[in-house]
Amino acid sequence: MHTLHITSTTTVDGVVQREFTVGDLTGALWSAADVAGPAPLVLLGHGGGTHRTAPAMVGRARRLVVDGGLVAASLDAPGHGGRPRTAYDERETDAMQEAMEAGEPVGPIVVRYNGVISEQAVPEWRTVLDALLQLPDVDGPVGYYGINMGTAVGVPLIVAEPRIRAAVLGQFWPDTLVPLARRITVPIEFDLQWDDQHIDRNAGLELFDAFASTEKTLHANAGRHKELPRFEADSAVRFFVRHLRAGSL
Amino acid sequence: MHTLHITSTTTVDGVVQREFTVGDLTGALWSAADVAGPAPLVLLGHGGGTHRTAPAMVGRARRLVVDGGLVAASLDAPGHGGRPRTAYDERETDAMQEAMEAGEPVGPIVVRYNGVISEQAVPEWRTVLDALLQLPDVDGPVGYYGINMGTAVGVPLIVAEPRIRAAVLGQFWPDTLVPLARRITVPIEFDLQWDDQHIDRNAGLELFDAFASTEKTLHANAGRHKELPRFEADSAVRFFVRHLRAGSL
Repeated sequence: MHTLHITSTTTVDGVVQREFTVGDLTGALWSAADVAGPAPLVLLGHGGGTHRTAPAMVGRARRLVVDGGLVAASLDAPGHGGRPRTAYDERETDAMQEAMEAGEPVGPIVVRYNGVISEQAVPEWRTVLDALLQLPDVDGPVGYYGINMGTAVGVPLIVAEPRIRAAVLGQFWPDTLVPLARRITVPIEFDLQWDDQHIDRNAGLELFDAFASTEKTLHANAGRHKELPRFEADSAVRFFVRHLRAGSL
Repeated sequence: MHTLHITSTTTVDGVVQREFTVGDLTGALWSAADVAGPAPLVLLGHGGGTHRTAPAMVGRARRLVVDGGLVAASLDAPGHGGRPRTAYDERETDAMQEAMEAGEPVGPIVVRYNGVISEQAVPEWRTVLDALLQLPDVDGPVGYYGINMGTAVGVPLIVAEPRIRAAVLGQFWPDTLVPLARRITVPIEFDLQWDDQHIDRNAGLELFDAFASTEKTLHANAGRHKELPRFEADSAVRFFVRHLRAGSL
């Protein structure tokens, strides 16, 4: 069992942010400053090119803690945040950049690269989850919340990890994820951008359709890839409260 | 100007339900018992075969009043609730019943019949809205909330009625509504059942797609026609609070 080391603790407006390491993995944990007992945990998977304390992670974590009474944790993906980048990481990010600049589809590159990342990220998340659940203020059941690359990592993680009981996912291509999604039965909230310039509408709908979950909800919003409305983060909090806190809502 | 007459007043758990008439129209109005001032109004359009105080209307009204600080009003559609039924109403409901029993598509009959109802219902709603806005505890801006037949009435009503600034709609066929939806630009939340046995999935998506609104959100839930989850009513309250109460949420 790897041990979790807290490397820094910061409290802002009633929320404690603890940065941690587990072996050479780097993550962050958010909880209420005035917490009375352990709370269910939501794992936050960040998007491609960002990291464990990117604004979207901190914003979602704050809402989960303050509005939902939950605990949240993020983890740098391989090649992201404080972690070393390989020559392969450089090649794939260069290829994405070139495709964008040439106006060519970026999907095939992202699908391939994020697939490679997820093979490494899934066992890493499971190790970190073991360590997080040893902390006195962290409890199950566990949720997972990740959009874009967070979904590329999340879908195989949910298949591998029976402790994850509910997930908010979205905005990814179906190519490699559909066969995995067909094995997922936990409740899903799935975000899709109706006018996504990178992910074809029918491709996005195909991934949502693939989940075997009897409770699943698609939230499709007008707007382009990066215009996911902020109110979907509030919706995610209510979704996790409904599924992770028995008797709530 | 037609005058609104209150015919009964009942208070249950902090919510006042006033049944009213405007000419020969029959409706109901819900507001907080301890209200301090006027609140924005949400018009509730009921589904086919139900009426102004059907459980879905009372349930949605309570949430809007208690959780949203809003006022809500419903109105019996032509041939529904306390209103006389014509020989035409009987023929169409018989035709629907026969189609259901024979396992034939009910859509063409519902589209036709609800189209006839909406031609009469739209001017009726506008007359009642004039009367409601005279009451001291009712204010603008105005929202509209109606699923199924409530959408068949709501779409032409929103086109005709500039005082309606936001709407929750859903679960209807695109056939006659698409050209009208293309003229609608107010924020829309649109409910669709992913496994609707009556409304083909692509038909439902086509109607959502048609709205010209820059802010529109599709909520598609796993389940059949009558299985719209109860939590969508809570989501509708938050949608109306966001759009009708400036500075909230």
